[in-house]
Amino acid sequence: MKTLSEHACFGGTQRFLSHDSRECVSEMRFAVYEPPQAKHGRVPVLYYLAGLTCTEETFMTKAGAQRTAAELGLMLVAPDTSPRVRLPGDDASWDFGVAAGFYVDATQAPWSAHYRMYSYVTRELPEVIAAAFPADRSRQGIFGHSMGGHGALVCALRNPDRYRSLSAFAPIAAPMQCPWGRKAFSGYLGADETTWLDYDASALVAQRPFHAPILVDQGTADKFLAEQLNPEVFADACRRSGQPFELRMHAGYDHGYYFIQTFMEEHLRWHARRLGAV
Amino acid sequence: MKTLSEHACFGGTQRFLSHDSRECVSEMRFAVYEPPQAKHGRVPVLYYLAGLTCTEETFMTKAGAQRTAAELGLMLVAPDTSPRVRLPGDDASWDFGVAAGFYVDATQAPWSAHYRMYSYVTRELPEVIAAAFPADRSRQGIFGHSMGGHGALVCALRNPDRYRSLSAFAPIAAPMQCPWGRKAFSGYLGADETTWLDYDASALVAQRPFHAPILVDQGTADKFLAEQLNPEVFADACRRSGQPFELRMHAGYDHGYYFIQTFMEEHLRWHARRLGAV
Repeated sequence: MKTLSEHACFGGTQRFLSHDSRECVSEMRFAVYEPPQAKHGRVPVLYYLAGLTCTEETFMTKAGAQRTAAELGLMLVAPDTSPRVRLPGDDASWDFGVAAGFYVDATQAPWSAHYRMYSYVTRELPEVIAAAFPADRSRQGIFGHSMGGHGALVCALRNPDRYRSLSAFAPIAAPMQCPWGRKAFSGYLGADETTWLDYDASALVAQRPFHAPILVDQGTADKFLAEQLNPEVFADACRRSGQPFELRMHAGYDHGYYFIQTFMEEHLRWHARRLGAV
Repeated sequence: MKTLSEHACFGGTQRFLSHDSRECVSEMRFAVYEPPQAKHGRVPVLYYLAGLTCTEETFMTKAGAQRTAAELGLMLVAPDTSPRVRLPGDDASWDFGVAAGFYVDATQAPWSAHYRMYSYVTRELPEVIAAAFPADRSRQGIFGHSMGGHGALVCALRNPDRYRSLSAFAPIAAPMQCPWGRKAFSGYLGADETTWLDYDASALVAQRPFHAPILVDQGTADKFLAEQLNPEVFADACRRSGQPFELRMHAGYDHGYYFIQTFMEEHLRWHARRLGAV
């Protein structure tokens, strides 16, 4: 593991790192914020998955999360949004390939050799974090934005034993029913749509609810809301399975980090309560 | 004036705009955060001047200021760091020309035709803001970072009637005594160093103190501290003129926005008290 940079921040330390990923068979970058409490013992850890076009830096730079994480004693971890190994066609569009890994394990060539973000996020990265940082793996939460909100929902719904808390900002909540999701799943998973069901949060939650309430914040001025995000499909699926779900619609807020930072503190407190943080 | 984008943020509105500048004889961009209180009347306005390589977006994206500004009812305004009209050699180095206007009125060709950031920041932009936004021009404060900390100190020390409050993060506090300042002043102002004195905060404060205390935060792990920033020279000048000055040295903090965001709330409260904000 290499430390690319480190910065004092709110009494803790913000680091950017890289390592050779077993799952992605490439160098992967990630960011870790260690709160001041991590100097004295293991702390709960909250994973954040970012959206299309983002990197491991986006959340740490724009979300304003470190202040509250320092207060609550939460470690924050943000992976990159795709492997950065170059493959033919990986930058032909902004919603597929580089920075658009969709947190799936690809089964289709050439993506299957490297694009294994689901296994990377749920298994490999937590091992790396627990080995190098004072993270308490028994107290993990996960959240994310847009493509990363989809990723957080899928990771937690499929691994309820690994995550105690779950929330999202403007997630792609029913990817099999929107253009972004259908394009990504076609490319990474192939034409057989039954293989897509494991990565559709609405399909998953309809089958089996998560063990804790799910919080989603969504802006009404989000230009992707009508075509891509489908929170109402997810809400219906929650109702069918009895999943407690809080969908908060915020008048006038859009899809970006000015929206996210506005509600960041509330999400961090939501997770901290369930993770037994300070 | 053109609105380039606008975003709901903490109950207020974050806008990015452009206009044709009279002083800079070019299109200039700037950013305005209107707190929720601005819907009901004029509010105090705090100008932030950014450092080398930055734009009007940097502060609004990375500093985490909107949350506290929304609480305190402060309008935030951030100009760009130079005109963007292209001149020969303006991108030959990162510390002169584009994104390195140093908040001076250049007297040397070709810069003098456009690089009039001092007059732009102190006179033109406040007029533009007062005409288009509910800003109370009788309650203005100013702060900034690095090159912009220098700019804030100079603008306020030379215009005490225009600014009620003043602070800086890691300012270039004695530009005539550091490589960045000497390069900028030589290029923009020419070889006669007597003309530089109007833009050297330490020279200015030694002549005439500001009417209010000045707050400066500085990290001890700032890689530019020893060669470029010289806060101790400014501190000495304050002592000579009786200027109340609080220099806070922060162990382990560097020159970037992880440092700035850590102490942003304290600066905003410092200004709000002096601006009679909520």
